[in-house]
Amino acid sequence: MAFSLLPKKTNFFVLFNKQTQFAIAAAVLFAQQASQGDFGLESVKKMRDIEHQADDIAHEIMHRLNKTFITPFDREDIQSLACSIDDVIDLIYTITNRMKVYKVVVIDKYLVEFSTIIEKSVRALAGAIEGLSDSKHHQTVIDRCIEVNRLENIGDTMRDAILGELFETAHDPIFLIKWKEIYQFTEEVLDLCEDAAHVVESIMVKQA
Amino acid sequence: MAFSLLPKKTNFFVLFNKQTQFAIAAAVLFAQQASQGDFGLESVKKMRDIEHQADDIAHEIMHRLNKTFITPFDREDIQSLACSIDDVIDLIYTITNRMKVYKVVVIDKYLVEFSTIIEKSVRALAGAIEGLSDSKHHQTVIDRCIEVNRLENIGDTMRDAILGELFETAHDPIFLIKWKEIYQFTEEVLDLCEDAAHVVESIMVKQA
Amino acid sequence: MAFSLLPKKTNFFVLFNKQTQFAIAAAVLFAQQASQGDFGLESVKKMRDIEHQADDIAHEIMHRLNKTFITPFDREDIQSLACSIDDVIDLIYTITNRMKVYKVVVIDKYLVEFSTIIEKSVRALAGAIEGLSDSKHHQTVIDRCIEVNRLENIGDTMRDAILGELFETAHDPIFLIKWKEIYQFTEEVLDLCEDAAHVVESIMVKQA
Repeated sequence: MAFSLLPKKTNFFVLFNKQTQFAIAAAVLFAQQASQGDFGLESVKKMRDIEHQADDIAHEIMHRLNKTFITPFDREDIQSLACSIDDVIDLIYTITNRMKVYKVVVIDKYLVEFSTIIEKSVRALAGAIEGLSDSKHHQTVIDRCIEVNRLENIGDTMRDAILGELFETAHDPIFLIKWKEIYQFTEEVLDLCEDAAHVVESIMVKQA
Repeated sequence: MAFSLLPKKTNFFVLFNKQTQFAIAAAVLFAQQASQGDFGLESVKKMRDIEHQADDIAHEIMHRLNKTFITPFDREDIQSLACSIDDVIDLIYTITNRMKVYKVVVIDKYLVEFSTIIEKSVRALAGAIEGLSDSKHHQTVIDRCIEVNRLENIGDTMRDAILGELFETAHDPIFLIKWKEIYQFTEEVLDLCEDAAHVVESIMVKQA
Repeated sequence: MAFSLLPKKTNFFVLFNKQTQFAIAAAVLFAQQASQGDFGLESVKKMRDIEHQADDIAHEIMHRLNKTFITPFDREDIQSLACSIDDVIDLIYTITNRMKVYKVVVIDKYLVEFSTIIEKSVRALAGAIEGLSDSKHHQTVIDRCIEVNRLENIGDTMRDAILGELFETAHDPIFLIKWKEIYQFTEEVLDLCEDAAHVVESIMVKQA
């Protein structure tokens, strides 16, 4: 019995690790794009490819969930976690794509800063999720989730400072409309990472 | 036993079909309004009536769900599906109402195009949901869900092209603010149809 | 048996009442800030404190939920309710904070009006939730939920009228961007109260 169930348990962790690897790939690419001011066709197409592949993993998780009786943790938590990670990747793609639509070609120091924090947060989240597979990593999971929360708070403060400056200094409303949206999206990525970390915490509490 | 359960099964399907009929009515009215540039008081009131009636059905589904022990598919899926369809109708009403608030009276070719795609997507979704009641229609359900996904992709590309044009050509920021919001809402209707189609797919996978 | 279960039941109600008391505190503070046009550092810090304390309660509810086998009502409903109330408080804080970021110091009659309605809605919601603990208060729960819905409808109409006026009279697009967002947020608080009231109704239907 244990023999037939364990592989299923393992599968979900393997799938979640695949999914978070795509989240990391998206965050790394976004940091590159921001630091080079490159949101051209080619570059955005790369992000789209990552997003599509991540989508396939999310679908596979949902499909297996619907076909599996015994799961390593609560069904709704598996669903929530898969959706949360997918939301993170989707929003990173949306930002990249919106930069292309807005034809922004400058290197913006705040966007670079945000992209660095996003990469840190996604890596912390990936570490937390990886830790879920083994109760020995309990403390690591907690630490990484706290890190995701910490980065979200930093993002909040940053967005407020940047928006404040934008509204004080911008004379071109259309410029303001574009960047207001972009900065709100970037901060929202950190919110979504925090949502995912909350699911992770909830899974861990139930396992304890 | 089968005798006492079947009517309950049927009821949910009947209710879902009623709900999707209202979604179709909303999409058809929206396409009319867009093609005639008519978002006047009378016309928006008609949409509000559809939205209210659809709301009653959604409430009835939730009420019966809370009172029913045995359901044709998972309780959370029934709830998700009812909410998703309701979200579609709500957002179509929001667009119509916002057009009235913004006092837009022109016929906009892009809005007409979007309204046509929305009608197609809502009809495909309704077909998929109708197919759920009988496993013989398995392939129809799949085909319709794929169609909803396809239309969402078209909507994405359209919105990007239209936003790109809007930001390049608009000189009046207030004009831009209005239409940016309207086009984003219209594309979001297609996202919501896709969300509903995902619930349908998930129901079907579990039935298989 | 009943002896060991009742305290657990009581706990959730006590926690929900604590949470709604913070929601009331947030709404009262917001009404004060709006009527005095005071969204300065000190005042916004007070709101942040309320939001943080409310967050702790929400976390405690989720933590206990994950550790409790028998709950006074469905687990998902407890989770939904805690999240909904938290969303209300979060959004009130967001409005207050955004006013600070936008450096708005005027007293705006519409914001004052909205803040009054928000306070009424939050108090009605708190009353509904309090009533859940005893079936004798069944009618009170219903009445308060209807009141929350009524206030949401009023908020909808108000927002439409205010947005219509804003778009007709505003000549400064940056002014319009700020206030459009603020009014939409304030109306959204009423939507979130309605979402919470829907959860309350659903809990009550199941209890009946």
